[in-house]
Amino acid sequence: MQEEPGESTLKALVAYRGAPFSGFARQPGQCTVQGEIERALEVLFKREVETTCAGRTDAGVHALGQVISFNLSNDEISMRSLKTLQRSLNALINDHIAVSDLSEAPFGFSARFDALSREYRYFFSCESVRPVLAQDLMWHVPCTLDIAAMKEAAEFLIGEHDFKSFCTAASAVGKPTKRNILSIDIYPETLMGQNVFVIKVIGNAFLHSMVRTLVGTLLEVGKGNKLASWVKDVLKACDRGAAGQTAPAQGLVLWRVRYKHEEAL
Amino acid sequence: MQEEPGESTLKALVAYRGAPFSGFARQPGQCTVQGEIERALEVLFKREVETTCAGRTDAGVHALGQVISFNLSNDEISMRSLKTLQRSLNALINDHIAVSDLSEAPFGFSARFDALSREYRYFFSCESVRPVLAQDLMWHVPCTLDIAAMKEAAEFLIGEHDFKSFCTAASAVGKPTKRNILSIDIYPETLMGQNVFVIKVIGNAFLHSMVRTLVGTLLEVGKGNKLASWVKDVLKACDRGAAGQTAPAQGLVLWRVRYKHEEAL
Repeated sequence: MQEEPGESTLKALVAYRGAPFSGFARQPGQCTVQGEIERALEVLFKREVETTCAGRTDAGVHALGQVISFNLSNDEISMRSLKTLQRSLNALINDHIAVSDLSEAPFGFSARFDALSREYRYFFSCESVRPVLAQDLMWHVPCTLDIAAMKEAAEFLIGEHDFKSFCTAASAVGKPTKRNILSIDIYPETLMGQNVFVIKVIGNAFLHSMVRTLVGTLLEVGKGNKLASWVKDVLKACDRGAAGQTAPAQGLVLWRVRYKHEEAL
Repeated sequence: MQEEPGESTLKALVAYRGAPFSGFARQPGQCTVQGEIERALEVLFKREVETTCAGRTDAGVHALGQVISFNLSNDEISMRSLKTLQRSLNALINDHIAVSDLSEAPFGFSARFDALSREYRYFFSCESVRPVLAQDLMWHVPCTLDIAAMKEAAEFLIGEHDFKSFCTAASAVGKPTKRNILSIDIYPETLMGQNVFVIKVIGNAFLHSMVRTLVGTLLEVGKGNKLASWVKDVLKACDRGAAGQTAPAQGLVLWRVRYKHEEAL
């Protein structure tokens, strides 16, 4: 990207609840997270401002640490401090979205292409009774799970693999489906006094509904329907039909995105 | 209470979200937690079953550990195990309510009169940006708070006092307003990756909206609008007008109720 000295690139950290939106990506006639953010930017700057995001989350998926990037002219930025701009955006934006940080990034920074890794966390409860207090933030799977077997199965997914079996069939056609999973951790946590499990997945990037299919597949092992080593067969098959179900969106949170320029800090 | 050998007393632990209900107590023509529980019991037993609760929570207040008691005839109980009865209730009841435990209590046990203490927890965030992920479970107070001063103020409330100043005026008329607060703890916690504060209050019993008024009063001190010692004046005034605002219902959870018969276990 060529240097345009009259412009600067901003990086915003964005949190949102999934339920009120038809996903992240702008779509005509639908209420989406990107649509709401760009509408607020348009009100502020009286022109269209195009944004790029780190992860195009599906309908119903939440975010704590989504990242977006966009360019503003230096005139537009110098009119107010970044703190004021962040406050204005939060005042204008949908109540279920929050810009939790806003900073200047290296010129030409792309929230999508400069991301080193994305971290997603999936929350589920396997208590027999439904977890009413925060049930819109997790999946309720009322059965006894073999967590050790799930951890064993997860090991087979770590590293660079063709994850075609874990990708919504239609969106995989003719596109590269190799991804690199850096780590998968499965651990218990307490959320509003209720016992939950978290599957934390860090990868360089993810295919469409890949994390949710990965969760659905690991749960097949946890329930004892499949052996841990079955996950190797699922990978080999390169066929969505080989994997487990797509876990519901409400349990998934785009937790954090890491960038090269942050490491220098 | 006289022994009626043909009956048994059951004790149920109940969790619910506040928002869908017009409070706990049954009211004609309104959707309430007690109304929903008694409707499910009526479907199961083909008769009205009257329930007693430990804390009549207001509209919008959540519960993790509400306790209710009710009597069934031994014939009604012997028809199925308690586990089956609990499952049937959870299948019949509103999705935002869960019976998380059901056990037999000493005959004549009252969830209300036999309670030794009630524990409430109030959740609030004082981050500048709204905590979107779990904002329906907390109060957002975007300012810098002096937590040490709040703790100092809380000390004045511990022990037996006349809490008339902390009670909705109308409901205090002609009724005893002395209560015994056993402890107040204020501490930080992380909820879905977001920083929150918890005010944990344990007392023998509470007046109408007493915990929320206590929270609103402590926040006046936290914001620096009042000195910690002002709380002593609020207590002395015996006038609702002397205290701080009533904190919103959505941040409050009836967390746990303790009973004498449990201590013997």
